[in-house]
Amino acid sequence: MVDSWVNSAELFGADLHLELSGGGGRRAALIRALREAVRGGRLAPGTRLPPYRSLAADLGVARNTVADAYAELVAEGWLTARQGSGTRVAQRVEPLGAPRVPRKAPRARGPLHDLRQGTPDASAFPRLAWAASYRRALTRAPNEAFGPGDPAGRVELREALAEYLARARGVRTEPSRIVVCSGFAHALRLLFHGRVLRGPLAVESYGLGFHRELLAAASVRTVPLPLDENGAQVDGLDRERAVLLTPAHQFPTGGPLHPERRAAVVDWARARGGVVLEDDYDGEFRYDRKPVGAVQGLDPDRVVLIGSVSKSLSPALRLGWMVLPERFVDAVVEAKGEREAWASVPDQLALADFVTSGAYDRHVRRMRQRYRGRRDRLVAALAAHAPHIEVTGIAAGLHAVLRLPPGTERSVVKAAAWQGVALDGLAGFRHPAAKGDAPDGLVVGYATPPEHAYSAAVEALCGALPPG
Amino acid sequence: MVDSWVNSAELFGADLHLELSGGGGRRAALIRALREAVRGGRLAPGTRLPPYRSLAADLGVARNTVADAYAELVAEGWLTARQGSGTRVAQRVEPLGAPRVPRKAPRARGPLHDLRQGTPDASAFPRLAWAASYRRALTRAPNEAFGPGDPAGRVELREALAEYLARARGVRTEPSRIVVCSGFAHALRLLFHGRVLRGPLAVESYGLGFHRELLAAASVRTVPLPLDENGAQVDGLDRERAVLLTPAHQFPTGGPLHPERRAAVVDWARARGGVVLEDDYDGEFRYDRKPVGAVQGLDPDRVVLIGSVSKSLSPALRLGWMVLPERFVDAVVEAKGEREAWASVPDQLALADFVTSGAYDRHVRRMRQRYRGRRDRLVAALAAHAPHIEVTGIAAGLHAVLRLPPGTERSVVKAAAWQGVALDGLAGFRHPAAKGDAPDGLVVGYATPPEHAYSAAVEALCGALPPG
Repeated sequence: MVDSWVNSAELFGADLHLELSGGGGRRAALIRALREAVRGGRLAPGTRLPPYRSLAADLGVARNTVADAYAELVAEGWLTARQGSGTRVAQRVEPLGAPRVPRKAPRARGPLHDLRQGTPDASAFPRLAWAASYRRALTRAPNEAFGPGDPAGRVELREALAEYLARARGVRTEPSRIVVCSGFAHALRLLFHGRVLRGPLAVESYGLGFHRELLAAASVRTVPLPLDENGAQVDGLDRERAVLLTPAHQFPTGGPLHPERRAAVVDWARARGGVVLEDDYDGEFRYDRKPVGAVQGLDPDRVVLIGSVSKSLSPALRLGWMVLPERFVDAVVEAKGEREAWASVPDQLALADFVTSGAYDRHVRRMRQRYRGRRDRLVAALAAHAPHIEVTGIAAGLHAVLRLPPGTERSVVKAAAWQGVALDGLAGFRHPAAKGDAPDGLVVGYATPPEHAYSAAVEALCGALPPG
Repeated sequence: MVDSWVNSAELFGADLHLELSGGGGRRAALIRALREAVRGGRLAPGTRLPPYRSLAADLGVARNTVADAYAELVAEGWLTARQGSGTRVAQRVEPLGAPRVPRKAPRARGPLHDLRQGTPDASAFPRLAWAASYRRALTRAPNEAFGPGDPAGRVELREALAEYLARARGVRTEPSRIVVCSGFAHALRLLFHGRVLRGPLAVESYGLGFHRELLAAASVRTVPLPLDENGAQVDGLDRERAVLLTPAHQFPTGGPLHPERRAAVVDWARARGGVVLEDDYDGEFRYDRKPVGAVQGLDPDRVVLIGSVSKSLSPALRLGWMVLPERFVDAVVEAKGEREAWASVPDQLALADFVTSGAYDRHVRRMRQRYRGRRDRLVAALAAHAPHIEVTGIAAGLHAVLRLPPGTERSVVKAAAWQGVALDGLAGFRHPAAKGDAPDGLVVGYATPPEHAYSAAVEALCGALPPG
């Protein structure tokens, strides 16, 4: 930036003050100043501008500078130049109008205590380790990484994921059957909007509302499967073309799918030509024993496994993956398209480095310990302050379910809100067509608050629970 | 990783060799080994496994280790355990099948000389400066940046863009009217699939085929506007609801939209309630004079400006922006959705730093010089070797158009391919419903090859041109 300079010119008979400031030299400054004068209404539409030489003399700049500036503004449509009529202010420049009231960003002003499920502790993002992986990846990347790429995702990442998922989740695949995406919702859109799969789709009778909405938007009918203590009742599967399950940790009620049902759902898929969608959303976070391997390992040709770093690292990275039966790969890549909505290539390369360097394992281990500690504190606090409240779904994941006396859910959620605690009742996760009992309960996400704020959040929660 | 160890066990009467290797201790190794034995068929479905104690003794491990491993594999569905029948291999484990033939990645094995338009020189990506911005951004970011975010994009980036676009492109906006996206195609999808805008949409009679396809997929009818030496003939606009233009540099024919037409299209939008979509795909790259400001500045309430870093930095970042009239902002953010297809937040923060630190200006300036040099070399080579070929559209951008004698385009493209030169003829860019002349020509992208390969590419091109 050069020094700013201010000048005034006897323009059009009146004293028009032009502020010729900012970078880029006098020509650029004059263009900006004239543009602002037109925008601000100080130069009214139709006004005739002075000849180059007069303005140049007034401003103490070269004649060419003024001629250039006029030509530029004519090219941009601010001024018009016509033979015999000189240069005039154009008619059509509209003021920008008052600044709009800023849209409220979601969660921009969060509650005092955020115990909503779904997001990891944002304060625990491994900034240094991630930046180191990013830098390493950027340094090592071949030039073609910065050109147009493969919609399936970088091969470095697909190789790292194939190895990692085999080791950590019992997944059986190879890099060419993995497609990188931006997360679970993106995967659903590719599969259903992209017509790789069609409905009707069986789903668990409790799940995320926005998945149901996304499916409805793709005209996919969802059929709820009842849940019991062994997970989804997959023997109810019939003519559906696919089933969406959370086998490692039913979302949100919290139990794993029983081994016999894991087997049964694969048998159903084989017998009926169906497809199992395995939402492996928090498979890494199991506290009291080793993680249960993915159903995908039982039949890689019948199961689509979908995972992401949204729970393990951060939803801000928008990085996920689909492990696909071979016959779906081309259609999914086709649905993804050559130009759109790929995940950032540098981030893909950084994640590949993060996984292969062992940093991902270290981070998951650290977070597993932290979340287990939080779960233990939650369970202990409830045992001390609300021993009549049953806590379930605590063997894994980033949330627990508190069972409530019938008919109390809404008032407890409201009471919690009064205490500054944001959390969700079970009712919001229930499929509208679900049959059978609709138990009252709270879904308590214990991962979201930063470490220092967690105890106060649990305390406030206990204060909002109904007396025993 | 612990040391690997190998052992063999007298299993089921036969000598079954179990490789107990890899990390995670003996329990994990045993689980892996048994899983592999089942997968590989060495343990056939239905086979009864030995009791814990015998296998434990054979392998020299604790009984609990074996019991744990069996339980795990039962939970995963590899084994079944039934009262009175012991632990058996389950029936349903399907082999993975032969590795699939890897899908050919687009451009994975490129031509000898790549003169296709559309991508910047991948070897010129500013790795160090970008990594520095990324690291700085990651260090400075508030914790909430790693949590669920604002679908409109990070405010840091929207602020940086508002300032930059005002300065460099004459755009009039404010951060709250900018929505971050993954590039031009994503912007089109949000606008039309998201039903923010509807067809029919007027387009220039020459443009990118994949834009037309994307619009057709959203059931948007496109109506071609003829082009002449002043750009699109916008006086032909009638009842269309919107018009998509490349005012700074018509793609691919290369001229800027005439000032009177810039004014006329805004007048049309005002009179008819229409919307102008301004594809500002290479606005920064003008060589012989300062860039023409964006049409958006003439009327921010009638023009949607869409830009990205795909030409200025790299398409691998998947980062773009939409500058919107206020009334469209909420609908676009709604179409974007809360969870899907956002651009990577760390990359957004890195770009904000890259722009505000001046690194973006420096990079654009450097690339402008490089591309101008390439353009000059192309023009000089043609003047020397093919003086009868007219070169047009060279005042700006990353490509030029070579006019060919009527009826020769297809054979010249074919001759170029024989010389190892990949480039496109004009015909592929023509709207199927375009009327009037269909001139023969070549679209020569001069940005794609790395610097060292450019001269040879130009030479090969000259060798493929028809004699004068």
